[in-house]
Amino acid sequence: MKLDEFGLIRNLTSRVPTTGRHVVVGPTDDAAVLSIEPGEQVLVSTDTMVGGAHFLPETMAPFDIGYKAVAASISDIAAMGGEPRQVLVALGIPSDLEPVFLEALYDGVCDICSYFDCAVVGGDVVRTDGPLFVNTTVLGATSRPPLLRSGAKPGDVVFVTGQIGSSGAGLDFLLHPKLLIDPADGAVLKERHQRPKPQVTAGQILSLEGASSCDDISDGLASELNEIASASGVRLRIETARIPVHVAARNLGRLQGKDPLDYAWYGGEDYQLVGTASPFAFARILARAESMQIQVTQIGRVMQGDGVVAEFPDGTLDVITAKGYNHFPG
Amino acid sequence: MKLDEFGLIRNLTSRVPTTGRHVVVGPTDDAAVLSIEPGEQVLVSTDTMVGGAHFLPETMAPFDIGYKAVAASISDIAAMGGEPRQVLVALGIPSDLEPVFLEALYDGVCDICSYFDCAVVGGDVVRTDGPLFVNTTVLGATSRPPLLRSGAKPGDVVFVTGQIGSSGAGLDFLLHPKLLIDPADGAVLKERHQRPKPQVTAGQILSLEGASSCDDISDGLASELNEIASASGVRLRIETARIPVHVAARNLGRLQGKDPLDYAWYGGEDYQLVGTASPFAFARILARAESMQIQVTQIGRVMQGDGVVAEFPDGTLDVITAKGYNHFPG
Repeated sequence: MKLDEFGLIRNLTSRVPTTGRHVVVGPTDDAAVLSIEPGEQVLVSTDTMVGGAHFLPETMAPFDIGYKAVAASISDIAAMGGEPRQVLVALGIPSDLEPVFLEALYDGVCDICSYFDCAVVGGDVVRTDGPLFVNTTVLGATSRPPLLRSGAKPGDVVFVTGQIGSSGAGLDFLLHPKLLIDPADGAVLKERHQRPKPQVTAGQILSLEGASSCDDISDGLASELNEIASASGVRLRIETARIPVHVAARNLGRLQGKDPLDYAWYGGEDYQLVGTASPFAFARILARAESMQIQVTQIGRVMQGDGVVAEFPDGTLDVITAKGYNHFPG
Repeated sequence: MKLDEFGLIRNLTSRVPTTGRHVVVGPTDDAAVLSIEPGEQVLVSTDTMVGGAHFLPETMAPFDIGYKAVAASISDIAAMGGEPRQVLVALGIPSDLEPVFLEALYDGVCDICSYFDCAVVGGDVVRTDGPLFVNTTVLGATSRPPLLRSGAKPGDVVFVTGQIGSSGAGLDFLLHPKLLIDPADGAVLKERHQRPKPQVTAGQILSLEGASSCDDISDGLASELNEIASASGVRLRIETARIPVHVAARNLGRLQGKDPLDYAWYGGEDYQLVGTASPFAFARILARAESMQIQVTQIGRVMQGDGVVAEFPDGTLDVITAKGYNHFPG
């Protein structure tokens, strides 16, 4: 099957939703044309995944690569409290990549775009002599003040949504598939690593109820907490016993002789949200999240100072640095 | 000099403009937050360049790579008649690439962003085992109906802006630097290939005066004309003698024993605009363009039918297919 660039783009584009309520012109012209409701602001974020660094054949199927590339960008919109709406996908493809691989990748793009009612409004396909790369740009909108990293204030509560560490544990399991892990745990961990769910609804609740800061957990809790502490000029004091490490990650940690907390601190790619809120706002957040069956857990407090300090169950304290997952290991 | 990902991004971001009239939050958070004027629509386009395919060390300096990657995306906004405003830059960098290379690349990004008053509001830097790649996404806006490829009507005039073929000829010259070409011609051709100027003002004139279709010349005149013919369901009849092939490209063609017209048909990357307009609208376009010292040249007519037909000076006719510059040579 020989495909030129235009034929390939047409084939891939036919597999994904390309229209939507705010799409005036989709991927048929030089640029997409998008509408915005009065009072809304535009949100935009871009993210790149490269074969070898962000995924391996044994950890991610083609479908997962497409799904997760878009998920990572949608998560950035979620962290601002916005509604994701449109996606652009740019692919760099090795010459020996089969069309069926790209079709599966686009089916993954379609899956998450359909879930979040996003339209694919543009893209690009180029050849590369190197590994596959996938760049995704997501546009969204919000009519509320966006959630920033910089609004945490002393006295605020520090919280996370959902349960974390499961994506990092999932990667560990995928790289060690012979581990004798409970099959149910294994299935959950794989799913969490390969197809994480961006927390769009949670972000909107945080924004609606006035959280003071927010970040999505892409590089690990340690890294994101340090981002908030640094941007806000505060210290975050975390009680490690309160961190909702996913039970399957706890089980894997025991099996591997690793501290399960490390999956949460440094594993990254959970795409849950971490943030801060005044105690009053946090009470409202908890109530509304509970009504939507979204877990929100207080893990600490904002204090005057700087950095991130962890308090362990035995009372010892430790400074947690931002050595979360970093694509430039030092 | 060792840089981690965050340090590298901070260093590169410090080299480019990151604020602007429509930037509420720049590249400091999970997503950028942008404002839009009442009545405006958002335009967005993405473009990717890969080392080996789109540039070689002998054809493009690091500065040029950054400049041209952004220029290609701005040109898409120009082709819609819009105003470019914000840029996101995602880089995939080989591990042996020197920081000074990336700094020069970002200086090129800065140069064109400053020229068009665009802010860099986001980006990503990842490692790759393959060649350097640069993905650029440009956002713009327009309060007028966007220029599409699909509005050409029989009876309309076909026109191009500026002079074309010079980027393709520039590439030919850069790949054959020992050609005994007039140094002034050589300098112009190099400039046209390495630092093409997107036709933002021309696009706005076309939109204001009611051009019926428009496309930017990224893949060559043959390819773009076929795009318009196909999207509009019309035939475009082109008089080849009227095509404003740049004089330096004509000179190089003679020297190389090549038909200079081929640089225009198939060279691509001129980033001039090609379009159609009713005779009345074309008269207005010509008048306004002249007042802005922008060259606009009629090259043919829109007819009923399909495809692109070229009429040569000797009266012979030829069907011109879309074999413009294509990154998947067949």
